[in-house]
Amino acid sequence: MTSQRVRTTQTKRLVGQRVRMAGWLHRLRRMGGINFLVLRDGFGLFQAVIGDVDELGKLHGLGPESVIEVEGTVVAEAQAPDGVELHDCRVAVVTPVTEVLPFELNKRVLKPTLDVFLDHAPVGLRHPHKQATFRLFGGILAAFREYLSGQGFAEIQTPKLVGTATEGGANIFSVGYFQQRAYLAQSPQLYKQIMVGVFERVFETGPVFRAEPHDTTRHINQYTSLDAEMGFIRDHTDVMGVLTAVVRHIFDALRERYAGDLALLGVKVPAIGDSIPSVRFREAQRIILEQFGEDCHQEPDLAPQHERWLCQWAQEKHGSELLFVTHYPVAKRPFYTMPAAGDPEHTHSFDLLCRGTEIVTGGQRVHNYQQLLEHMQRWGLSADAFGGYLEAFRYGMPPHGGFGMGAERLLQMIVGASNLRETTLFPRDMKRLMP
Amino acid sequence: MTSQRVRTTQTKRLVGQRVRMAGWLHRLRRMGGINFLVLRDGFGLFQAVIGDVDELGKLHGLGPESVIEVEGTVVAEAQAPDGVELHDCRVAVVTPVTEVLPFELNKRVLKPTLDVFLDHAPVGLRHPHKQATFRLFGGILAAFREYLSGQGFAEIQTPKLVGTATEGGANIFSVGYFQQRAYLAQSPQLYKQIMVGVFERVFETGPVFRAEPHDTTRHINQYTSLDAEMGFIRDHTDVMGVLTAVVRHIFDALRERYAGDLALLGVKVPAIGDSIPSVRFREAQRIILEQFGEDCHQEPDLAPQHERWLCQWAQEKHGSELLFVTHYPVAKRPFYTMPAAGDPEHTHSFDLLCRGTEIVTGGQRVHNYQQLLEHMQRWGLSADAFGGYLEAFRYGMPPHGGFGMGAERLLQMIVGASNLRETTLFPRDMKRLMP
Repeated sequence: MTSQRVRTTQTKRLVGQRVRMAGWLHRLRRMGGINFLVLRDGFGLFQAVIGDVDELGKLHGLGPESVIEVEGTVVAEAQAPDGVELHDCRVAVVTPVTEVLPFELNKRVLKPTLDVFLDHAPVGLRHPHKQATFRLFGGILAAFREYLSGQGFAEIQTPKLVGTATEGGANIFSVGYFQQRAYLAQSPQLYKQIMVGVFERVFETGPVFRAEPHDTTRHINQYTSLDAEMGFIRDHTDVMGVLTAVVRHIFDALRERYAGDLALLGVKVPAIGDSIPSVRFREAQRIILEQFGEDCHQEPDLAPQHERWLCQWAQEKHGSELLFVTHYPVAKRPFYTMPAAGDPEHTHSFDLLCRGTEIVTGGQRVHNYQQLLEHMQRWGLSADAFGGYLEAFRYGMPPHGGFGMGAERLLQMIVGASNLRETTLFPRDMKRLMP
Repeated sequence: MTSQRVRTTQTKRLVGQRVRMAGWLHRLRRMGGINFLVLRDGFGLFQAVIGDVDELGKLHGLGPESVIEVEGTVVAEAQAPDGVELHDCRVAVVTPVTEVLPFELNKRVLKPTLDVFLDHAPVGLRHPHKQATFRLFGGILAAFREYLSGQGFAEIQTPKLVGTATEGGANIFSVGYFQQRAYLAQSPQLYKQIMVGVFERVFETGPVFRAEPHDTTRHINQYTSLDAEMGFIRDHTDVMGVLTAVVRHIFDALRERYAGDLALLGVKVPAIGDSIPSVRFREAQRIILEQFGEDCHQEPDLAPQHERWLCQWAQEKHGSELLFVTHYPVAKRPFYTMPAAGDPEHTHSFDLLCRGTEIVTGGQRVHNYQQLLEHMQRWGLSADAFGGYLEAFRYGMPPHGGFGMGAERLLQMIVGASNLRETTLFPRDMKRLMP
């Protein structure tokens, strides 16, 4: 065999050349004298035509997913996928597979139920649609970091083992920690605020843990949180400005760099106009009443149906797939949220909605030490448990704010998956710790 | 005040202009009629000269770390740090600080013991040396990802809550997980191997957890692991080639992008020649005997002193700060390590040493399903507990290998810190879960 291996995605540009590819036997169709072998590698698919009986014989008794090498000449062929295929092939078997797959990987649509798929994710993820989905995941992370790094944000990695519940809430996993008890961090919130005192602008990408005892399509017990926090802001609108630019950069990057994956999945990344429309929480409730006939003025938060309606309204009224809702009530936001100027029942906070669902939460934080102590008292939190956090405030914090978004949730929205588990690599839920 | 704030690091290029900066009051030296104020922001320091009594009066009674804004004219001044300073200043106080700091932040050397420093890390990390150290940390992560992304590696995020101990070892944290018991992942090893079956080449940056009950300068209970895994290799030397290129890219990126931080810390990034010299484990033991007089032929592993000697030897013999040691004994490597061709007592594994310490571990993995089952039996591991992992192998895995390195350990080596806790943002150890 020729020495230098090329990837399937590189081969398309090498018409006329003799090349060697390696990968998995994705599909073999025997058509009598002519046989079509589709090879899959980590990057894509490529069709080889196997005419020679001896070469075909090497694959005798082997099933899909056998690891093979194929050497051949790249030939332009209008009938072939991508307009090229491999002729005059020689085949070598690297790792033979004879066991029957739990479900077919070489059909366009994955057949198994979600549960069966997840049970067999180590092999199911090889399906081209799954490959494409999780390549987008990597693209989201890279674009998020790329934009913020360019804006002077420093990258941090904060502890996931903490001594107290991050925001004083329930739904926290408990860990035996030598002679003590530790908890798994629900968010890097307090650490990223502390680090505003060091770097002004920080971001983190990493796992967070929620012991949510809910078995729904929206809940999951570990997800990848994309967090940012920035100092020297005027108010939450500065944070919304940076967030808009981040999301725009992520969407642009996916469109530019993952066009093939998006096309394979048949999905489009949302479009963002010059700016994202914004309504206050109270206004949003009025829109819901006037446009959709439901009176939710008494509610302190928006329900999923409300978010869907608001997105519908934003699309119709502003032609926008995205919508900011700002000024959520104090009661529904954590203790560190900055009350709105002149409206202490509401906050300098926001959610970003897209295609019917909330994808980002953020806001301005309290930066004054005394005010923070008062908030903690009002929220029934013990200042003792937040010693390190409070120290940052005792020694001077600037006005600051930030946001957090779940990468898997963002991906779910982009590919239009009905269950968050479809866009989580190896999801963890109440019943699932494996594989 | 002028509306647009500029950063300290931008101001140096704006001689003659009127600018506004914001940050922390790092130092104020009153010299009678003339007063030197050093402002620190998230990016650096800048000196302002305050002549006006009224402006100085605004700072009356305020301590270091007060958050302030300073507007002034940028003037070239040979005596000033960086050759520029701010004149004709106006001052505004954003967040006054009157409490006395736990230790001084505006002296070149941080005085407190490590324990006192860590107790007050939320404010201690603001020291310019600490800022510089952890900026380098972000630079390491970015350069690691940048190189691998460019080589077709896909980024993944794998579960940190797992159903079984990753490598069957002890030192694993246990988590109450609804009606079950979960464990914190000690490494993404098994998941990244599974994902070679999907993407061929993957990397992950994220936390790993080791319940090491050791209180030493080298042990820590959570660290940031930089992991990569790649398929379709010939043997471990292909992995060493990629690793060499990764480390070279990280070192080059730090030298180019963080020259100021390296200078501030007075440290140099190691130099890598055209290639990194490599010795086999048995050879390394012979060198230790011949050059340093200690016979360690009976030992199955290298002790820290051995690693220091080997680095000394590599420097003297090859002029290299880095050294690969390969072919570690089977007994000291995990079950998934590929035995060496024709030498079943040794393995296709390697450590990368630098400046006296091991910074990376890696090797080729077993890819044949039957061989892997035999290894698990020999290592006393139950195949049942590794169902998902084994499924990837039952359905065809190519020859593959990879490596993992601790980002904090790499940073420790670069800045020459004596304790790993000095280069870990908020270290977790047996006694420390806070801040």
